[in-house]
Amino acid sequence: MSADTPKPAAPKPAKPIEPAIKPTRAQDFPEWYQQVVRAGDLAENSEVRGCMVIKPWGCGLWEQMQQALDAMLKATGHQNAYFPLFIPLSYFEKEAAHVEGFAKECAVVTHHRLEVGPDGKMRPAPSAQLAEPLVVRPTSETIIGAAYARWVQSYRDLPILINQWANVVRWEMRPRLFLRTTEFLWQEGHTAHETEKEAQEETERMLGVYETFARDWLALPVFVGEKTESERFPGAVRTLCIEAMVQDRKAIQAGTSHYLGQNFAKASGIKFQSREGREEFAHTTSWGVTTRLIGTMVMAHADDDGLCLPPRVAPTQVVILPVAPKEDTRAAVFEAAEKLAAELRAQTWQGQPLRVHVDRRDIGGGTKSWEWIKKGCPVRIELGPRDLAQGTVAVCSRDQGARHKEFIPQADAVTGMPARLGAVQQGLYDRALAFRFEHTREIGTKEDFYAFFTAKNEKEIHGGFALAHWNGSPEVEAKIKEDLKVTIRCLPFTETTPGTCPFTGEPSPRRALWAKSY
Amino acid sequence: MSADTPKPAAPKPAKPIEPAIKPTRAQDFPEWYQQVVRAGDLAENSEVRGCMVIKPWGCGLWEQMQQALDAMLKATGHQNAYFPLFIPLSYFEKEAAHVEGFAKECAVVTHHRLEVGPDGKMRPAPSAQLAEPLVVRPTSETIIGAAYARWVQSYRDLPILINQWANVVRWEMRPRLFLRTTEFLWQEGHTAHETEKEAQEETERMLGVYETFARDWLALPVFVGEKTESERFPGAVRTLCIEAMVQDRKAIQAGTSHYLGQNFAKASGIKFQSREGREEFAHTTSWGVTTRLIGTMVMAHADDDGLCLPPRVAPTQVVILPVAPKEDTRAAVFEAAEKLAAELRAQTWQGQPLRVHVDRRDIGGGTKSWEWIKKGCPVRIELGPRDLAQGTVAVCSRDQGARHKEFIPQADAVTGMPARLGAVQQGLYDRALAFRFEHTREIGTKEDFYAFFTAKNEKEIHGGFALAHWNGSPEVEAKIKEDLKVTIRCLPFTETTPGTCPFTGEPSPRRALWAKSY
Repeated sequence: MSADTPKPAAPKPAKPIEPAIKPTRAQDFPEWYQQVVRAGDLAENSEVRGCMVIKPWGCGLWEQMQQALDAMLKATGHQNAYFPLFIPLSYFEKEAAHVEGFAKECAVVTHHRLEVGPDGKMRPAPSAQLAEPLVVRPTSETIIGAAYARWVQSYRDLPILINQWANVVRWEMRPRLFLRTTEFLWQEGHTAHETEKEAQEETERMLGVYETFARDWLALPVFVGEKTESERFPGAVRTLCIEAMVQDRKAIQAGTSHYLGQNFAKASGIKFQSREGREEFAHTTSWGVTTRLIGTMVMAHADDDGLCLPPRVAPTQVVILPVAPKEDTRAAVFEAAEKLAAELRAQTWQGQPLRVHVDRRDIGGGTKSWEWIKKGCPVRIELGPRDLAQGTVAVCSRDQGARHKEFIPQADAVTGMPARLGAVQQGLYDRALAFRFEHTREIGTKEDFYAFFTAKNEKEIHGGFALAHWNGSPEVEAKIKEDLKVTIRCLPFTETTPGTCPFTGEPSPRRALWAKSY
Repeated sequence: MSADTPKPAAPKPAKPIEPAIKPTRAQDFPEWYQQVVRAGDLAENSEVRGCMVIKPWGCGLWEQMQQALDAMLKATGHQNAYFPLFIPLSYFEKEAAHVEGFAKECAVVTHHRLEVGPDGKMRPAPSAQLAEPLVVRPTSETIIGAAYARWVQSYRDLPILINQWANVVRWEMRPRLFLRTTEFLWQEGHTAHETEKEAQEETERMLGVYETFARDWLALPVFVGEKTESERFPGAVRTLCIEAMVQDRKAIQAGTSHYLGQNFAKASGIKFQSREGREEFAHTTSWGVTTRLIGTMVMAHADDDGLCLPPRVAPTQVVILPVAPKEDTRAAVFEAAEKLAAELRAQTWQGQPLRVHVDRRDIGGGTKSWEWIKKGCPVRIELGPRDLAQGTVAVCSRDQGARHKEFIPQADAVTGMPARLGAVQQGLYDRALAFRFEHTREIGTKEDFYAFFTAKNEKEIHGGFALAHWNGSPEVEAKIKEDLKVTIRCLPFTETTPGTCPFTGEPSPRRALWAKSY
């Protein structure tokens, strides 16, 4: 409410303020998440199980993320291309021969026509059965590999540095909006190189791009490291990843970058004549991030009143809410709101003009304001007739809580907006980092480790992230997963000190990052 | 070749210059088209029949088109959203009950898992057969309609103005790169309105956007009008379209905008409480353009040496080709090329910095230059050691032919580049318009009409577009289609003068546009 809202006749006794999202994080985290996504108008479930409808606010968020990341991918020398949605079944057979344990939960196309059957109902036409079924791409290594095999003859054709923005499908039995959906959107980079060294550098470079993107755009502090063998992408020689902590202290894998060695090149036949005139297989990489990043941001930043979007990727950074309940002042307030919007749009932050929206809808001011709170718009400005007279506005920074409000001169609101957006961006990052710091422990004994992941506090939430030594044994890893549902999220690059494995007493080259995960 | 290319010892007799693309347009237009697309590195066929690989140059072109059109859609109040790839079979039954003749050539998903069968080969797992098959979207009216039915309760929820960028699948028996592919990329707008008037206005507004986009970005002059009943989108009340002429004088439908009346709202249940408190069905529209626009541009602008891309959508507008065969001058030439690129990038045209690329690849200068000619890069600049000494460059405007070259001071090349790009853009448009004008006739008799479409010139190409009166009879339309494979492309909005139908002698409200078409 702005300064113009009629004051109540007499002060009422303070009543506890209800959060906008029910249940709260503390009451039921998974249900809170669903409600935040719904209330924030990001997405909803469709009638096709596991497939979501990404609504305009969620789609706008993805577009901002896509633009930023696309520019980073191009700046590192990559070009976009587009490959077929369908992959012949035989390609999977080729891959299966090279790759153990690749995912088989795929949508399979078997017919290419519909017809009305004898019962009067529509059905796939039996006469239009495909000789070879087609698989809706769960990832595109094989179909892209087939193209690279055509394109590469000589070392002069390398490297190939290509990225694709696409939809992919992996059948999900327990879908959850953004985090795990049957269809999702992503980018998948696929590169082919002359040498292992170049391919390894590419794998690490792209992980670095993801770390930067998560930190500077999404306000997500992430651990950066390498997966153990058991968590590696099937067929990869190395899988690198970024791992974020969310507010129930679990980990979310937010992006991966794989060095595939020559495995996929051999399966697809990507070979070239080397500088020495020998026939060699290319070294390939692949790397991707998905709409799961949206779910990660929600779980990391949202509060009990709804979303808190990082300003760098928010579709609207500043929303102006004209408050003009009375007919006679409405025109003046709306005009002032548009003028203010124009002034704000003339400001730039992070090299781009501010994204400003005036919400002119004819609905109640409270309802309108709460919609934008729940949508996590970084800054709201309320503007009413009294503000016009006084030259002030009410400015609300979302990271400061749903009820934060400052009355400041309008001119200051304009000139100070880039700095304010910067403060919101930094505020979200700092809060997430402090939270992660608070819930990450270096643990030296098995007893402490088990206690950390089993002792529950009043919120039924386990400890968080553990940094603990590990002797490298897959059996130890498997046992802990069985006992605690805790896995090694990665071997962080920052951990380099040798020590003793608390589970076996054996030497350990460095600490691993352990957590429960999505 | 630049001024620095070694001159031949003695002049040789002039030999006829071979075109880069074989066959030429005159020799075999369909095959010329395939060769231009291939030589221009836009796309290629994949091993999945009917599905193409869009290569980086083609994808970059689509990205430019997408950015420009997306901005126009947002400027007219639309937001993007994303809906599921899969549509339950039952939705098609609902639609089929309302809509005669909708397309049934669809990819049908019947299983959600792969497994290794008893013969050791991979197959769709019989245990994972879907209870209800899913159809890969051929268009999204039904799945989007189901969402709108959830979102709309009151007139206050209207209008809904949403666009989706997506891939769609329609099984093609005779695929052709870009023009007709099983999978293609497009945008599909879907809007819902309170009144017929608003929906009709929306339908016309979006057709206007397409006309502007075709003219000002793609350099395509188009006829704008309404389809006859036989060419209407199944279920639509009105289908509006833009129609372009390509160089074999056939028509390509380059975009459509449909007013769907309340047909789809009834099938999907999009109803609302009106201002008068009555329950009413919404009036909906849909409109789309596809990657077919790329094929249209190729057929309209390319010549016998390859592509000619309109600068506004070319991924690279200016390519700089350093010509430095000798080791001792190479560094200086490359440095000068980068400096020139930086100066050009500081120039703007149409509100954007110029898109400039320096081709530093170590391949022969002739090969390199011809690659860029075939890719249709609007402007090439060749720069060698002698140019450095003289302060000149060789500038080549693609619309002036593959061999066009001017030697001009380097400073002029920089400051004059925006105007040059403007001239290339205008040049392509003017040429296409002149071509269309030359091959469009107002025809007043049946004999002339039949002669126009059957009399073939030395190039085996029929007349072109005919503007001829028509009494509105579907039988006349059907007969002409049968006789000549000529259809009414549209009833152009510019044609308003009544006259006499040459086929029946009956009165005609206005001339129709007749042509063979893709």
